[in-house]
Amino acid sequence: MRILVALAVLLAGTAAMAQDKTPLNAADSDPVRLGWMQGFPPAADKQVRWDNSSMWAFPKTRWSFSHWRELMPSTAVRRSGPISVFPRAERRDIDAITLVPLGATTPMTWEQSLAANYTDGIVVLHKGRIVYERYFGALKPDGLHIAFSVTKSFVGTLAEILIAEGKLDPQRTMASYVPELAGSGFGDATVRQVMDMRTGIAFDEAYGGIDGDVFRMSLAMGGVPRPKDYAGPDGIFANVASLKKAGAHGGDWVYRTPNTDALAWVLEQVAGQSIAAQIEARFWSKLGMEQDASLQVDPVGTGFTGGGFSPALRDMARFGEMLRLGGRWQGAEIIPAAAMAAIRKGGDAPAFVAAKYPGLAGGSYASQWWHRAGGQFMAVGIHGQGIYIDPKAEMVIARFGSHPVATNRVINVTTLPAYDALAAHLSGR
Amino acid sequence: MRILVALAVLLAGTAAMAQDKTPLNAADSDPVRLGWMQGFPPAADKQVRWDNSSMWAFPKTRWSFSHWRELMPSTAVRRSGPISVFPRAERRDIDAITLVPLGATTPMTWEQSLAANYTDGIVVLHKGRIVYERYFGALKPDGLHIAFSVTKSFVGTLAEILIAEGKLDPQRTMASYVPELAGSGFGDATVRQVMDMRTGIAFDEAYGGIDGDVFRMSLAMGGVPRPKDYAGPDGIFANVASLKKAGAHGGDWVYRTPNTDALAWVLEQVAGQSIAAQIEARFWSKLGMEQDASLQVDPVGTGFTGGGFSPALRDMARFGEMLRLGGRWQGAEIIPAAAMAAIRKGGDAPAFVAAKYPGLAGGSYASQWWHRAGGQFMAVGIHGQGIYIDPKAEMVIARFGSHPVATNRVINVTTLPAYDALAAHLSGR
Repeated sequence: MRILVALAVLLAGTAAMAQDKTPLNAADSDPVRLGWMQGFPPAADKQVRWDNSSMWAFPKTRWSFSHWRELMPSTAVRRSGPISVFPRAERRDIDAITLVPLGATTPMTWEQSLAANYTDGIVVLHKGRIVYERYFGALKPDGLHIAFSVTKSFVGTLAEILIAEGKLDPQRTMASYVPELAGSGFGDATVRQVMDMRTGIAFDEAYGGIDGDVFRMSLAMGGVPRPKDYAGPDGIFANVASLKKAGAHGGDWVYRTPNTDALAWVLEQVAGQSIAAQIEARFWSKLGMEQDASLQVDPVGTGFTGGGFSPALRDMARFGEMLRLGGRWQGAEIIPAAAMAAIRKGGDAPAFVAAKYPGLAGGSYASQWWHRAGGQFMAVGIHGQGIYIDPKAEMVIARFGSHPVATNRVINVTTLPAYDALAAHLSGR
Repeated sequence: MRILVALAVLLAGTAAMAQDKTPLNAADSDPVRLGWMQGFPPAADKQVRWDNSSMWAFPKTRWSFSHWRELMPSTAVRRSGPISVFPRAERRDIDAITLVPLGATTPMTWEQSLAANYTDGIVVLHKGRIVYERYFGALKPDGLHIAFSVTKSFVGTLAEILIAEGKLDPQRTMASYVPELAGSGFGDATVRQVMDMRTGIAFDEAYGGIDGDVFRMSLAMGGVPRPKDYAGPDGIFANVASLKKAGAHGGDWVYRTPNTDALAWVLEQVAGQSIAAQIEARFWSKLGMEQDASLQVDPVGTGFTGGGFSPALRDMARFGEMLRLGGRWQGAEIIPAAAMAAIRKGGDAPAFVAAKYPGLAGGSYASQWWHRAGGQFMAVGIHGQGIYIDPKAEMVIARFGSHPVATNRVINVTTLPAYDALAAHLSGR
């Protein structure tokens, strides 16, 4: 109970910051400046911990997001082979680019936009060369950072690959692949509906509070300590199997993280391999990655594919660049053409309208990827994580952040105009 | 309480096996055969978990020892640079070598000795070439395995390096480096006494049971779940600081794990760097390692230097080979000559006599390394982990195991005669 009360305070605090108070800005919340986890051992008031959930509370998140595996169990996603070194053509003119956040009138510079969104790291590729790269806070170039729901786009990409290889039928029901889902809300959803987040599952993706679906999911997976009398689902898949239907499948797009974990369950059964092993075999061992990545696991060893992946920043950029290049890397096919086409095609735009996502008018969501009207597509994680691919501008951006507010509805307001301004600048428009 | 009862059963079970019952042999306890953690998700009776302590109970240890980071938080010890590939000169005649375990009369073959000691992996270098390499159970050549107290020898080596560099004075007291130790039993011990395990700390290194010092240490570091009303030391260093003196320092050698954690505390303060970072900077980035290694951390991020390191087998062999070569690797000095000499010198033999360690008559312990009378020295971890360096035979062995019995007093009985027979064989004796 003490833990729950502490959590309630922490999570309510996050919500309060978004609504009432002004949180510390990026400079004042700098984790090095605040001394989080410094000293051997760190002093009590400088500790960032799993067991009291302080790791989830801004501004300590500015440390925890760059140290995820030190807080929870994880499994390795290993690199191999020679590193693919990006050529560099760094440009000093980028910091001064100006943009106007959505709904605002006062312009800010690119450099200001990084602080506004609590950027921990950002790398920009133009035509395959690094034109810009910065690290802030607790993140180093060789460090890992939690990517949250960017993880989902790796899972969606694996799904499209398995479909292209004829191993997965997107029109089959979830229960036909995973019998344990038969009694759940997912049972009669098709794989495609789950991939595109168009299920009618009863799950409210609201962050904060200790009685919501997100908190129950966290308890199930061990993201937060369980109370002594815990009797809820034991593990990520058990949580998925416990969810019911609130409405029909195939309706409007609604963002619900358990869709991804349910999809991962199918993919693990179909491939006979964990998602971590699949990401390693398909991507991490093939793209000249620099660093092993890490996937958070639950108490029974299941990877949190809805949001538990921690890669290094430049490795995330390599994945994005491979997608920009049509699924090929140094002459090898990483993603079959049919899978690549399916990812690029995007989703049903009318189904996406009601979500009213800032900066995504005319966009869509499909195969666990976000699509903008201009052909850009992206992987997005709470608190400002992202892979952004703008094929027309030949630009790829990988970004980590630790914004105090979870939803990218707030963060996109600055990020997307910044990316648009940069794309125009790099394209000489 | 339920957790504690479950633990008592598990730990008592381990003790019972050693005393009364015959545990499953290596083949029958094979973790793949038993199906531990297979399936997505694994069935309830196939799970190996931290939160119910099943990870600590043989035969599930045959899986958990090869999957440590999936069970507890950890920090990375990263490799870098080109891999140093060992030349191979594998010999088929090794399996048939015969030996007689200490106190026995019936000989067994080398191959039989591997099963007798529940070997998970073993690699033998002769003159720098791999002459023998085998993997069993859940371990793969590119996998990590908990090395338990082999970790200590990395810490002792770091200590000798810092002494050689003039940054650490072994004659100073522990409290003079770490004021928090002033009130503890370690306060007036010298660094050297701690390095050589000749302190009078009140700590009984007995495994099993839920009221012993080892269990209390595990609770402090989060190796086992804490009961709800836990009020003991919070973290590895807090546990060290809580220990009292049972007798004078500087007497006989007595093996007590907290000596290493106390030493690590001093080294972290002196170097201003965690032990994980020091192992990375001194060894893992310099010896052409193949795999990032992993160090288990406690709830406040402190590495468990008494026994939490998980390297890959061949990487452990690289470290051993570097020591055999006098602290040098491919032309570079990894360990200063003075530090190397201090490690090779060994400890006070009379202080070691009372311990009556099988196979170590005339041996000693110093700088967190074990020394045999024949000049061989070794790093040793419970359940059969080890790095064995025989300079005269120009032989280095790295070994991982999951023997049901913790103490190497049982395991050495077979291992040391096997190593001696192999040394004689390779030397043409």
